[in-house]
Amino acid sequence: MALRARAIYDFRAENPGEVSLRESEVLSLCSEQDIEGWLEGVNSRGERGLFPASYVEVVRGEPAAPPPPPPALGDSRYANLPTGGYEPAQPFQSVAAPHLGLAFQPRAPSLGYQTSQPSDDDWDDEWDDSSSTAAEEPAGPTCGTYSGGYHDYEGSGSSRFRLSTRSDLPPGPYSTSASSQAPGKGSATVSRNLNRFSAFVKSGGEAFVLGEAAGFVRDGDKLCLVQGPDGPEWQENPYPFRCNIDEPTKQTKFKGIKSYISYRLLPSHTGLQVHRRYKHFDWLYARLLYKFPVVSVPRIPEKQATGRFEEDFISKRRKGLVWWMDHMCSHPVLARCDAFQHFLTCTDDKAWKQGKRKCERDDLVGANFFLTLSLSPGSPVLDPHDVDGRLDGFKAFTKRMDEGVLLLSQTAGEFARKQASGFKKEYQKVGLAVRGLGQAFEMDHMAFSAGLNRAMAFTGEAYEAIGEMFAEQPRQDLDPIMDLLAVYQGHLANFPDIIHVQRGSLTKVRESKKQVEEGKLELQKASEIQERCNVISYATLAEIHHFHKIRVRDFKSQMQHFLQQQICFFQKVTLKLEEALQKYDVA
Amino acid sequence: MALRARAIYDFRAENPGEVSLRESEVLSLCSEQDIEGWLEGVNSRGERGLFPASYVEVVRGEPAAPPPPPPALGDSRYANLPTGGYEPAQPFQSVAAPHLGLAFQPRAPSLGYQTSQPSDDDWDDEWDDSSSTAAEEPAGPTCGTYSGGYHDYEGSGSSRFRLSTRSDLPPGPYSTSASSQAPGKGSATVSRNLNRFSAFVKSGGEAFVLGEAAGFVRDGDKLCLVQGPDGPEWQENPYPFRCNIDEPTKQTKFKGIKSYISYRLLPSHTGLQVHRRYKHFDWLYARLLYKFPVVSVPRIPEKQATGRFEEDFISKRRKGLVWWMDHMCSHPVLARCDAFQHFLTCTDDKAWKQGKRKCERDDLVGANFFLTLSLSPGSPVLDPHDVDGRLDGFKAFTKRMDEGVLLLSQTAGEFARKQASGFKKEYQKVGLAVRGLGQAFEMDHMAFSAGLNRAMAFTGEAYEAIGEMFAEQPRQDLDPIMDLLAVYQGHLANFPDIIHVQRGSLTKVRESKKQVEEGKLELQKASEIQERCNVISYATLAEIHHFHKIRVRDFKSQMQHFLQQQICFFQKVTLKLEEALQKYDVA
Repeated sequence: MALRARAIYDFRAENPGEVSLRESEVLSLCSEQDIEGWLEGVNSRGERGLFPASYVEVVRGEPAAPPPPPPALGDSRYANLPTGGYEPAQPFQSVAAPHLGLAFQPRAPSLGYQTSQPSDDDWDDEWDDSSSTAAEEPAGPTCGTYSGGYHDYEGSGSSRFRLSTRSDLPPGPYSTSASSQAPGKGSATVSRNLNRFSAFVKSGGEAFVLGEAAGFVRDGDKLCLVQGPDGPEWQENPYPFRCNIDEPTKQTKFKGIKSYISYRLLPSHTGLQVHRRYKHFDWLYARLLYKFPVVSVPRIPEKQATGRFEEDFISKRRKGLVWWMDHMCSHPVLARCDAFQHFLTCTDDKAWKQGKRKCERDDLVGANFFLTLSLSPGSPVLDPHDVDGRLDGFKAFTKRMDEGVLLLSQTAGEFARKQASGFKKEYQKVGLAVRGLGQAFEMDHMAFSAGLNRAMAFTGEAYEAIGEMFAEQPRQDLDPIMDLLAVYQGHLANFPDIIHVQRGSLTKVRESKKQVEEGKLELQKASEIQERCNVISYATLAEIHHFHKIRVRDFKSQMQHFLQQQICFFQKVTLKLEEALQKYDVA
Repeated sequence: MALRARAIYDFRAENPGEVSLRESEVLSLCSEQDIEGWLEGVNSRGERGLFPASYVEVVRGEPAAPPPPPPALGDSRYANLPTGGYEPAQPFQSVAAPHLGLAFQPRAPSLGYQTSQPSDDDWDDEWDDSSSTAAEEPAGPTCGTYSGGYHDYEGSGSSRFRLSTRSDLPPGPYSTSASSQAPGKGSATVSRNLNRFSAFVKSGGEAFVLGEAAGFVRDGDKLCLVQGPDGPEWQENPYPFRCNIDEPTKQTKFKGIKSYISYRLLPSHTGLQVHRRYKHFDWLYARLLYKFPVVSVPRIPEKQATGRFEEDFISKRRKGLVWWMDHMCSHPVLARCDAFQHFLTCTDDKAWKQGKRKCERDDLVGANFFLTLSLSPGSPVLDPHDVDGRLDGFKAFTKRMDEGVLLLSQTAGEFARKQASGFKKEYQKVGLAVRGLGQAFEMDHMAFSAGLNRAMAFTGEAYEAIGEMFAEQPRQDLDPIMDLLAVYQGHLANFPDIIHVQRGSLTKVRESKKQVEEGKLELQKASEIQERCNVISYATLAEIHHFHKIRVRDFKSQMQHFLQQQICFFQKVTLKLEEALQKYDVA
């Protein structure tokens, strides 16, 4: 008998080769083996094709919010997220297909900001020496090192995850205290989310809301949320700083056997330079992802297996790291975090290792991170309906912005290509033709035409030069715009999870209220849940506010830069033409 | 038995459908009827295809220099003249295919300067009234009216012309006095050219050199050739003038049944405006071609059957006429000629007709035109070898210039198309994408981003406007360049005939010297021949000198205009971008 599955959500085919599913319809599966998150089967209308493995179940299981379909086969662009598919937790995908090397890492955006592909051998190359402790052992092909016993979720989740062959999910503070295998512990009777992979659960949001988070928060770790003119904001970093990243240099070790690229960082608040390699950035990035549940951690540039020492790649990576650094320093929470400060300031190898281990033992991560948040005195409790509305608005905003960013990024890329090919060619052809006619004129041997001939030769060369200028120009103006857009594609890809955490906590509030009405929960507990949810709402809205602030700042300055460069370019063209025109004065 | 022909020249197939011929090879003809100068047949290698009718003979005939093949079928570009095919007389073709309406008209250049196609019904529309005399009767589909008995050359030429079904060749003064049917007349025993259609014969050059030209030359008709620093020059017009051509207006007559376009001309030397129609230009052009054998008469814009009242066409024709007028006024010989002065100055209908008839009765045309030429006292006799060398140089020059002009003209046309399509599209796409992202940003409802949103909307519109500017720009800069190139393509197409006349006369000098040596010619006669040939050499070199002079003048001023327009364009683009940039100052 053929394998059968039942659709647990509606799915609308959007690409050739896909088939649409209606919730509850029964399908025949061609194989149990998914291909990058897709299964092949025949639906109830007899149509054969692909559909997301996560949209169907072969066995029983509680339906939850529908996860997004995986990217269209052969297309890993972030923009292929289904329309309206922001709600479902992104990380689900990373976990559902860990065999693809995407473990606990958000989905990569489209413009070259893919993170943690195992192909970059920066990690194979041990960074200081072979004395790395267990805590420093790279965890297989994943991006960070996670000490402690790995938890195997195989078979324990809903049936629709059984396709995952293994899970590199690191243990969060909730994984031992709040796993589904230990449901008896904890004070809340509010039901736990069955989807172990939802951002809400994974981030620790659920554990925090349910009052299961516990940790010692020093005053220095406290993060304050304040009420600004537009709503909640992170309290500004009282000690703002910048950090310069120099052009990287190639270094070797083991007598030249190993090569790597080293970046010189110069933070403004210490004035002391440090040298960091890509793998250090990568380590830090993984720590940040792990620690901060409702913060949009800027993405680091993608890894790359080959051509790592090529000039173009190095320059591109540096530009990505410069953007990353700028967004790190600009973020009131990230800028102050210990791991980042350690990364920026540690100049000593031994101290580095100690600090690294300390960071990895930090227990104010995930659920416990929320414990570090405090509202400024007198902060009002936010109206959940109002928060919901603002999140809806932001979701709609990010969708439109994402579309806008994608279009502009594609357009800019195409425009850059056209300038390097068509535009260049056209101007050079004009130059060649003018020069050719000038050369023909030189055959007349008339003294009175020598000036014209020289002027035409110069004009021809000017047009050839202008063609070259068109080809070179995108580096100055379009490339920076595309870099900017890539950074924001990363942020836009982060927000669905952040929103999901907030939404999850609001759901818990509603559930708790209902349970109070049913007499199943003490009012006091419900109030505490609501209070903790309020903290998450503050943090989420503060993060959104911060996003808008840096967005306006960045787009303003980059559009100015773009226009200045364009103006400069057209002025250079004009100058070249004026130079050519002058040659005719003496012709 | 199939029709057979023998190739009298090598012919190399250059286009699909053509077959190559080797001199002397025998072919089967598919039909005796040529198609636009091409015959179809099977060559000795069994290949079937097209070849120039003039390259084969069905019956006996003296081989002469190979005439150029006709233009490739369906392609009437001047540029398709075979490489190195300048020597053969152009008019041969006009005469060989008079059924195509090309009678006694030089070959049309490629860029819209075709003349005297019968499709333009300007001529169907009688221009003043029905009282036109015999002298005003349009000669069938040809371009001008030629009174007097038409001479039928049918059957009298070489066999390769028998395909001409009729000849509208107007009678020159030589046609009654020096036709091959009356070889006994005249004093020279130097043999006459058997090719009745060579420019040398047709222009009257032969008749003049052989001393057969006779006419009364008034002092006012005399044209002086002087020795300038670079060699012979036409004596400058002592009364230089210009003539303005206004934007044409549409006129009607016969109560609106007939419409035509009228141009207001304002010559600077009279200050009196006259109104002329295209057919008047066309009449004058035909007279000039007929009268001046070694002068490059500027071509008038092509005729057009449909769309004559469309704005674009009218504007394009006017620009062509403006160029024509400029070159007419600039030419020391053409500017002073009676027919042109009559055309420029006559304001009265009746006087117009009288003057027109007078011009048509002018007998100082063709061979007799040479009688009007006189050398300034003390002008040296030119060394025939030196003249030959200079003509060789000029031939090479025109060939290179023609190639250069064609390439630039094609390049400019392509560049204009690209600006109107690709360039415009790219800038507009950028504008649209920027505007789209700005619109997405408007969804954030944050007061602090309103300025950025407005600035981005403005930037988007600026790029869309720049796209439009790129599309419109070619009218300002590339179109004038293409107009210029078209004018010069006309001149370049004129020169092979002019050179041919000069070469023919040098041949006669050589022949006469030989005959003197053989005792067949009196020394006195030979000296006279050499003297007359010297006049033709002076005129030819003067015409070449004039060509270079106006060429340098025109290309200098047009390149300046082009660059000025380009500079102006890029400045406008810069201005637009600066305007956009300013919007960010308040963002």
